Amino acid sequence: MRLATIRTPEATRAVRIDEDAAVETGHATLHELLARADWQEFAASASGVRHELASLSYSPLVTTPEKIICVGLNYRSHILEMGRELPEHPTLFAKYSRSLIGANDDIVLPSVSDAVDWEAELGVVVGSPLRHGSESEAAAAIAGYTVVNDISARDFQNRTLQWLQGKTFESSTPVGPWLVTPDGETAETVSHRLTCAVDGELMQEADTGDLVFSPAALVSYISSIITLMPGDLIATGTPGGVGHARKPPRYLTGGSEVVTRIEGIGECRNTCRDEKWR
Amino acid sequence: MRLATIRTPEATRAVRIDEDAAVETGHATLHELLARADWQEFAASASGVRHELASLSYSPLVTTPEKIICVGLNYRSHILEMGRELPEHPTLFAKYSRSLIGANDDIVLPSVSDAVDWEAELGVVVGSPLRHGSESEAAAAIAGYTVVNDISARDFQNRTLQWLQGKTFESSTPVGPWLVTPDGETAETVSHRLTCAVDGELMQEADTGDLVFSPAALVSYISSIITLMPGDLIATGTPGGVGHARKPPRYLTGGSEVVTRIEGIGECRNTCRDEKWR
Repeated sequence: MRLATIRTPEATRAVRIDEDAAVETGHATLHELLARADWQEFAASASGVRHELASLSYSPLVTTPEKIICVGLNYRSHILEMGRELPEHPTLFAKYSRSLIGANDDIVLPSVSDAVDWEAELGVVVGSPLRHGSESEAAAAIAGYTVVNDISARDFQNRTLQWLQGKTFESSTPVGPWLVTPDGETAETVSHRLTCAVDGELMQEADTGDLVFSPAALVSYISSIITLMPGDLIATGTPGGVGHARKPPRYLTGGSEVVTRIEGIGECRNTCRDEKWR
Repeated sequence: MRLATIRTPEATRAVRIDEDAAVETGHATLHELLARADWQEFAASASGVRHELASLSYSPLVTTPEKIICVGLNYRSHILEMGRELPEHPTLFAKYSRSLIGANDDIVLPSVSDAVDWEAELGVVVGSPLRHGSESEAAAAIAGYTVVNDISARDFQNRTLQWLQGKTFESSTPVGPWLVTPDGETAETVSHRLTCAVDGELMQEADTGDLVFSPAALVSYISSIITLMPGDLIATGTPGGVGHARKPPRYLTGGSEVVTRIEGIGECRNTCRDEKWR
């Protein structure tokens, strides 16, 4: 099942995406839908207002999650090729919800940065509250998977030891277009091809099966620190191929098109736009 | 003027704290009050239900801010005594709202950590939206000041390069008891004595005038990255005297009393309690 948050002329709406239409569930956002304990059955049987698929405007999949948790250094092959040891614990940092954009929205390039880079990632959305969960409890608490690009201003990321300020620029981070629930084929057990292309050139390519810390391992670990809540978003880390590591480095510029794709899950297609400010 | 969020048997309430009573403003939380453009006049003239001061139960001053932004390495004398150079840019990291507790609530010591430490800090609450604000615009966007203790699990903080996981344990971070609005004497221009005592022993002592990046400088800087919104909380960093830096290191244990105090602003008094889990 695929679920999304779309924009209508009035407001946002949670929808189930069928083969032929998007069907409203009666909630303003996916987040609000996931707050129902029975969200899965409820969404599966929803029969609200229908929208043509071609006309959809995707909102950020989650708009105001309580938490956005990002993971660094999580692709095995990339860590090993860099000559580093596999980490014992996941590296976690945050992003604020105001940085999120929809699957086809413009990525706003900040006026204060000239080193904005791409990071294609598998996104995990939490579906039920979890505290101190085992990996199997964690797997059961995952609502599903989505596509994220953890757009990063490398100059700000590297100004200090803490990455946050380079990771949370306003209207920078595509998430969507939809959530794919783990019906049978889950991202836990199935390899998904993850790619990022910039202006048609393939920049990143990896397999989500190559994650050091799997979605369930991450959810379990985070739940030992703080309660995960429905709608929380975890960006599971990016593989090699970012622009900052290229020689010479390559960054996004106004007009660049970024296509972030996970086979079997979905695709974000975003155009970069220079921030106009004063 | 002092403003707070208190708990009543029914729900939380925003109140103005007068000399003789707390007076409800008609909002559920300080956050909701600050969302009014005229919150200052509105709060000053509020005349709702009154509560005896001795009976108040303080909620976290802000309960679900859109952003909690913490600052590292921001006390001049402490940086210089460590032999480091003054930083050019503020070090920023995040905390999630679920980690916040009230001014007199128990600090929950996580079952998974045995290195929980104190960090007394001046807290700044944002009062109006701000994007790309100058320092003077930033000063005008500050609703007021409060007391924060950025309780930190050093083992988790230092597991990886990113501090987040040691900084955001559930129910760990006192913030309150109230907001002091900058009527005349602001934390911008006035020195406030900041202290942290553990079981009656003075551990940290500094002057908020010693901040490298002042509240207005921080608000201005953050607003160049992302829009600050009413209710956002900034914890401006801690001076020397933390337990982790003592020889031998000293950490909080069940029953420890932590008193975090900023003269002219307020005091949090919290008892540590071991997390009981399974």
